[in-house]
Formats: sequence, structure tokens, C-alpha cells
Amino acid sequence: MIYLDNASTTKMFSEVLEVYNKVSNDNYYNASAMYTCGLNSKNLINESRNTISKALGANNFDVIFTGSATEANNMAIQTFANRKNKNFVFSYAEHPSVFNVAKELEGKGIDVRYVNLTKDGKVDFDDFKSKVDENTCFVSIMQVCNETGAVNDIKELVVYAKSKNKSLVFHVDGVQAFLKIPVNLANLGVDLYTISAHKVNGPKGVGALLVKKGVNVNPLVFGGGQENNKRSGTENVAGIVAFAKAVEINFANLMEEYNRILNLKQKLYDGISKTENFRCYTFVENSSPYILQCSFVGVRAETMLHMLEENNILISNGSACSSKKSGNRILDSMGLSQKEVESSIRISIGHYNTEMDIDNAINSILNANEKYLKITNKGR
Amino acid sequence: MIYLDNASTTKMFSEVLEVYNKVSNDNYYNASAMYTCGLNSKNLINESRNTISKALGANNFDVIFTGSATEANNMAIQTFANRKNKNFVFSYAEHPSVFNVAKELEGKGIDVRYVNLTKDGKVDFDDFKSKVDENTCFVSIMQVCNETGAVNDIKELVVYAKSKNKSLVFHVDGVQAFLKIPVNLANLGVDLYTISAHKVNGPKGVGALLVKKGVNVNPLVFGGGQENNKRSGTENVAGIVAFAKAVEINFANLMEEYNRILNLKQKLYDGISKTENFRCYTFVENSSPYILQCSFVGVRAETMLHMLEENNILISNGSACSSKKSGNRILDSMGLSQKEVESSIRISIGHYNTEMDIDNAINSILNANEKYLKITNKGR
Repeated sequence: MIYLDNASTTKMFSEVLEVYNKVSNDNYYNASAMYTCGLNSKNLINESRNTISKALGANNFDVIFTGSATEANNMAIQTFANRKNKNFVFSYAEHPSVFNVAKELEGKGIDVRYVNLTKDGKVDFDDFKSKVDENTCFVSIMQVCNETGAVNDIKELVVYAKSKNKSLVFHVDGVQAFLKIPVNLANLGVDLYTISAHKVNGPKGVGALLVKKGVNVNPLVFGGGQENNKRSGTENVAGIVAFAKAVEINFANLMEEYNRILNLKQKLYDGISKTENFRCYTFVENSSPYILQCSFVGVRAETMLHMLEENNILISNGSACSSKKSGNRILDSMGLSQKEVESSIRISIGHYNTEMDIDNAINSILNANEKYLKITNKGR
Repeated sequence: MIYLDNASTTKMFSEVLEVYNKVSNDNYYNASAMYTCGLNSKNLINESRNTISKALGANNFDVIFTGSATEANNMAIQTFANRKNKNFVFSYAEHPSVFNVAKELEGKGIDVRYVNLTKDGKVDFDDFKSKVDENTCFVSIMQVCNETGAVNDIKELVVYAKSKNKSLVFHVDGVQAFLKIPVNLANLGVDLYTISAHKVNGPKGVGALLVKKGVNVNPLVFGGGQENNKRSGTENVAGIVAFAKAVEINFANLMEEYNRILNLKQKLYDGISKTENFRCYTFVENSSPYILQCSFVGVRAETMLHMLEENNILISNGSACSSKKSGNRILDSMGLSQKEVESSIRISIGHYNTEMDIDNAINSILNANEKYLKITNKGR
């Protein structure tokens, strides 16, 4: 099986799974227990916080572990849902775990504003400037788009937003950026930053919200007061330490892997882009090397997906989270035609992928495209 | 290390960890993905739902997987927080993940009522009857108390509550009951039931809320719409399937282990109860065999805990979740004296414990008690 849907989820590194096993066996003790074995569990969690902080240049941030990035995004946004006479700004590119919370706020009568995207999938800075004002209390913009790989210039957006209202809170969904591109939170100027373990070859069921010191977030759940009273529930020690192991491995190889994956993406692009019906607007400077979104106009995405699956190649027709929804607000906002949207596929590369995987994918995609076009042309 | 704090958390069964490994390697695919490997992940999750339903006689319930029992309890309670002119009923014995949500509701001006406990730690039925009325919209009573092991007669409470208001929703925190004592949700008449994986030798970071068909709960988080739109976030496939494996093993041996553990508890009780300063009010008919709460009056719990830890025996001075809080609302509500509360310890037995563990624990407890009393008597 050639797995090219790594933006959806990844396979745990074997070293990460080993750590999960070791901690599950040796440090299963409750991190809130008062005996030494419990304190050891707590220490392991705190070391994991440090590993993550270091990888993000986030000395000035607290790390709150959650059960998912979705939960972290929700915690970030829902904290501010009670602000009166304020507005919220999001982009059309946001992941459903941000966008659908925005829709919830909108449903409560809150002034929610959505920023358009440029043709290459980035947040349109001019439109952003027209939406953010002195009454904006909260902005959430993703750093790398999970569907297109487009990378936003977060620093530029933060500087502008804070020039309008210096007390506004700027949240970034960093799930597809963390450990894929270099990120330094101290430089970006953001207040809140969301990450996920299972997108970086860590375990599923673990995420985190990084919170700049001095910024307050409210808990979504109440209970035993774990995670400094921000996220109650017995700490998932093994999952958290395994997450930190994945971070450690990825961080040590970040630029090496960046370049290797970029070469794979370039090879893929070169291999499939010569066909007449190929369209790609997001293969531009500063798009993530890990994601290639493109269209073979006339070949419906579902069809391409199934034809490739027959050749044991797994790709996606958009993020798994939203693949069942009709239409596509992200590609629509970029101004793609209906035909381009219908045929849009996402190929997302991961650490287990090799050049041979890409060669096979190129062959299969070209064959599928040719075969399908032949069939449909015959039918006319 | 003799681990006698199993009510706090448990060590994963080796078979459970094996399943976690297997699924992590073979079925890491996103359960929301449209290709066959994704559907296989989804099927594994649905089979896990069935395993859990079967173990609880819960054909008529949906299983919503969450990141913890704390989250499940919060989801259950927070759903009803907007009801106008209604009251909520909880007991003083509830776990912080229920009790602290109740306190949040109270803080919002909602009419929240707390039911007292009898001396043996159960919900006082007379007090319950005085608190529940036709305006009660929600009741949450735990089945087995995590601190005392007291078992409530849920069916009796449900029948009474529904006779006052047949549309009220009855939630049960079943974390310490599930797979420890026989539970049949169809018989109990409850609407919502919370369970946890890590209390039954499954992984941390996985819980579930069972929801009777026809009862609606609101999501705490919004996103990709997983878990039938009730709990968004990429499904923790390996964690969920490992949970189901733990359920399967426990369920197959439920009564056999019940009797084995009950014998261990009886042995422990017989071994330590003859000392003059021993007090125990919860070793009564229908208390859980897995938990023994008692006091050695005059020996502070923290002291006993540390003295036992020196002999490599781990126990608790109450649930880990609330052990740092001063006072103890549960023991206070039972009417224990200050001295009894201060010296209250919890010994909780698990599947890995043997007769030899209990023998060692008895010796260590008796020695610690004698030693400490000698020291303090000398000091006078």
C-alpha cells in the first residue's frame, strides 16, 4: 500500500510506539497520585511539555495537553464566545474544528467575519484588512491549509491585527505546520497555537494548545483540575510522552526531511503536471512540501481516488474530516471552477514515502487520467 | 511494587497493549477516510461499540467515544445547563468530574441540589426524595463511589425520580461500576451512563458516554462531525479497539474476578480490622469488592501512605483527582469525625493483585499503625 494521505493521519514511528509501550508498562501510575511513582508520571508529562516548547520556540507559552487538536481549537475559540459587542475573524480555509465553531458563534448572533482566499489558497491580506477592526477580539487563521498546503504569513497578519486592537487574541491552528515547516512562536507574535500528535507520527487522541503566558483560556470540561485546571481528566501519560518522542524525532530532522519531501513533491508535480487537463494553483513559493492539491479536469475526484486505490495508492479528495460534505468552501473561495473543484485531489506525502512511491503514484495517476478520459470521450 | 491504588488507574493488560500495537501498525488509517483502509478503521470502531454495548446490556443505547470519562460526564451534564426554571440533583459522593460541573451550574445561578449520604456512603434515599421534584430536569448519581466503594441502588433512585418527572434525564457515572459489578443498563432505566477505559486495564485517554436512543446530548466540541456529530476529532482507533479488548477480557471473567477480589478484600479486612483504632463504615453488603476505605484513627492518611510507600506498597488517601483538596465532602457527608477523615485511606484492589500482595499489605499496615502510635504516644 502506498499511503499518500499523510495530511489526514500518519502511522506512528516505531520508536514512538516503543515509548508508548514502555510508559504504559513502567509508568502507568496516575500523574496526580501523591506517591513517587505518580510524581514520576507527572515529571514525564512536564518533560514532554518542555520538548514541545523547545520545538516551537515557545518558552513564553504554557502547553495544555488535550485529547485532540479539535478540542484545542474549540478551547481556544469558545473561551472568547461571551465577549459582548465584539467581532471574530476567521478565514474560509479553516479546518472544520475551527470553521464549525465559528458557525456556532454565528448561530448565537455573534458578529463573525470570514476572510476570502487568494487563487493560491492564502488568506487575502486586503480582505483581512477590511474585516479586522478595533472591535475584533479574536482572530483564528491556520498556518498551513490542510487541503491545499498553502502557507499563510502569520506574522504579517498578527502585526496588522494587533495594530487595530492590541488586546485582541490571535489563535493559529498549526496542525499542518508543526514540524513540517520551521515555526517559532516567539517570532510569530501569536497568543494561542494548536498542534496534534497523530499528524506527526505520534499517537491519535493527543493534541495540545499552547497558550502565551498572560493569556487566559477557559476549560471546556471541569473535574479533577489536571493541566493546571484547564483540562481535567486523568492524564494520558503514555500518549503524551509518545507525542513528545515524535516531536523529538521530527524536530531533529526537520529541515532534512523538509528538503527530501520537497524533492518528492517536485518530482510528483513534474511527473503529473504535463497532462493537458492538469490544474494546480497552490504549488507556489511557501506552500507546504507535504501537500499537493491539484485537479485533473474532467476526472471526478472520487473516480480518481478509487482508480488509484485499485493500484494500492491512497490519496484523498480533500481533508477526511470534510470529505463527505458537498461542495468545498476552500476551493470555492479560491475561485476555482466547478469542474476544477469536482476533480480536486489531495496528495499528501509523509516520512515513510520513498521516491519509488512517487514514481508509482505518477504512473498510476497518468494511467487513470488517460483511461478515464478515453472512456468518457468514447461515450460522447 | 505492590500496587493497591487501582481505583485511581490500572495497568493495561498485556493483551490490550498488544491490540493497541497491532491496530496502530495495521489500522492507522483515518476512520473518516473514504478508501477501504479507512472503512476498516471505522468498522473496528463500530465493533468496539458493540462489544461495549453487549457488556452493559445496552442494545438500546448509542456509544459515544470521548477522550475521558471526565469529558463524558461533562457532555452529559452540560447538555442540560440551559434549561430554564428547572433544578438539577447530584449527590455529595460524586466524582469531581461531576461535582465540579454541578458547582459551575450553581455558579450560573441554576438551582442545584445535593443529596446527603448515609453513614455507609450511599445516597440517602429519604434526602433524595426531598430533593427531587416535578421541576427536576436532570439527576446524576454515581453507581459505585470511587472513594468508598459504596454501591447505590440506581434502579430505586431512577424509579422514584421518574415518578416525579417522567421526562427528567438520569445520568450515572459508572466508572467504578463498569466491569467491577454486573451492570445491565436496560434494567437500570438510566438515560446516560459514563465509562472509562483506564480503570479497567485499558488505555488512558479513552472514555465513553452511553446515550439511550431518543435522548439527545449536545457536543462539547465542534469539527469534522465524528461520533455521529457528537464528538468531533480524529478517532483514536487503536485506543478504542484496545478499550474494547479490555472490556472483552473483563466481561468474560467478571464474576470469577468479582469473587476472587472479594476474597482478597475480606482477607484484607480481616487482617487489619482487629486493631483498636480501626474504623470502617463502608464494608457492608453491596459495597464494591475492589475498594476498601477505612481509617486508623490517630494515624494521618499522608503518614500511612508514606510509611507504606517505604515498603513498596501504594495506596491512596482518597481519589487521586481530589487528594490535594483540603477536607473531604464525601466523608463529611457520611458524618465521619474530623479524626476519622484525616486518617482515611483507600486501598483499591485490581486484577494484578495476589493473596501475597494482601498478606504483605496487612503486615505493613499493622506495622505502620503500631509504629506510628508508639511514636505519638511517646511524644505525649
